[in-house]
Amino acid sequence: MNRVPTATGASVSTEALVGLAERMADASGTVLRGYFRTDIRAYEKADSTPVTIADREVETALREMIEAEFPDHGVVGEEFAPVRRDAPYVWVVDPLDGTSGFITGKPLFGTLIGCVHDGIPILGLIDHPVLRERWIGGEGLPTAFNGERVRVRSCAKLSEAMLYATTPHMFVGADAYAFETLCEAVKRPQYGADCYAYAMLATGFVDLVVEANMKPCDFCALAPVVQAAGGIMTDWQGKPLGLDSDGRVIAAGDERVHAEALKILSAGGEPEQGG
Amino acid sequence: MNRVPTATGASVSTEALVGLAERMADASGTVLRGYFRTDIRAYEKADSTPVTIADREVETALREMIEAEFPDHGVVGEEFAPVRRDAPYVWVVDPLDGTSGFITGKPLFGTLIGCVHDGIPILGLIDHPVLRERWIGGEGLPTAFNGERVRVRSCAKLSEAMLYATTPHMFVGADAYAFETLCEAVKRPQYGADCYAYAMLATGFVDLVVEANMKPCDFCALAPVVQAAGGIMTDWQGKPLGLDSDGRVIAAGDERVHAEALKILSAGGEPEQGG
Repeated sequence: MNRVPTATGASVSTEALVGLAERMADASGTVLRGYFRTDIRAYEKADSTPVTIADREVETALREMIEAEFPDHGVVGEEFAPVRRDAPYVWVVDPLDGTSGFITGKPLFGTLIGCVHDGIPILGLIDHPVLRERWIGGEGLPTAFNGERVRVRSCAKLSEAMLYATTPHMFVGADAYAFETLCEAVKRPQYGADCYAYAMLATGFVDLVVEANMKPCDFCALAPVVQAAGGIMTDWQGKPLGLDSDGRVIAAGDERVHAEALKILSAGGEPEQGG
Repeated sequence: MNRVPTATGASVSTEALVGLAERMADASGTVLRGYFRTDIRAYEKADSTPVTIADREVETALREMIEAEFPDHGVVGEEFAPVRRDAPYVWVVDPLDGTSGFITGKPLFGTLIGCVHDGIPILGLIDHPVLRERWIGGEGLPTAFNGERVRVRSCAKLSEAMLYATTPHMFVGADAYAFETLCEAVKRPQYGADCYAYAMLATGFVDLVVEANMKPCDFCALAPVVQAAGGIMTDWQGKPLGLDSDGRVIAAGDERVHAEALKILSAGGEPEQGG
């Protein structure tokens, strides 16, 4: 282990953070593969999204691993209350991103592990345990896919962009109108990939991912992977993502596509005045 | 080879049909895996769906295999004109179902191989070459997933059903209204799985798949797989699918869900009169 001993607020090496993130993903994958395509029951949460025993078992395990290694770090997860949310280092984990896909036997779900330092997401890991595909990237750590460096692709115009979102039903009210406008402006909208869409963007096969009603555990791990692959990921106003973002996110491989899409999204789908 | 020699119209054993279907899927998979996540160019067809050199190369190979083995059989494909469409046996092939997913690096695309006898789809094969997952089923051949028997699950009510469609954009006009009404009646609509959704239905993880604007090569291989797993697959009027169906399809694992959904779809989403 390359871990640098840490007291509250002390700096931790990237190697130490990556080491823990990788071991957390390994642990999560073992559990999720075991539950995949079994007769697992899904319960409905207050926000009407599904949760299973797999989600909760993995998050409990990940929280224990963080507590054991960095007891002064914070944890924000999907299934349980945050702890030490104001600590200098906060781990942001979604044990099972894409639970709806998971319970229908679709192997694109993943585990998301992010680390936020002083409010900035500095490390992200996307693990797809059934596919045995893992992306990891962050500050000073170029994004790698199963150990191999990957990069976003260039895309000069929004009209050439391949767009993904998990589902059009995630957009409500003015957001829905903005998203519909965006769909008409891109080359082709596609759905249903959950976190896999961001991984494909970081690998140069998708140009744009736009989503809404996301929680920090949905996007804090994604932003470092996208950015360390040369992409850009912000909220719909173009601001950096963090624990207090409003849940609207846009990821693009090319800053020109990001800028064009942002115009539509930040205006709520309305044409700009006086343009 | 268990092939029974055939003259025009002569009966062919299921074993012989299965043998060819499996070899066709093997050949397709080798080509598609080779092109997956390469810098392959997609062209837009007249219907604005994408096609690649992979689609065409595979379909050419599959047609040659059919010609070599059953020169009197017909072939209906995705990319080239039909031949002997009125023959007693017609092979219906989609070399690459889910091309949009394929070119964005998503591994859920598949090869579909169906065989229609006297107008009735009697054999279907769904192959996912990157995932190395294959479903095959038909008349007298219970559906198997990688060699293991699978079955649909029961689902008593539409309100409990997990629904899939490739994209909501595939529904136009009154179909779009009917589909929206259906989305509100099910437990959860999901998108983006292409033919994988039917395979998951046949395996007991999805309850309902509803699509429109499909071509015979999109659904003739799917119906036998669904039906030989205990499910039901028809058009939106409840009629059996065949080469002349109108492209609106519904697959359900439980006939109760099929009946409830059909009421919504056949009425174009309008509530029934006098009900």
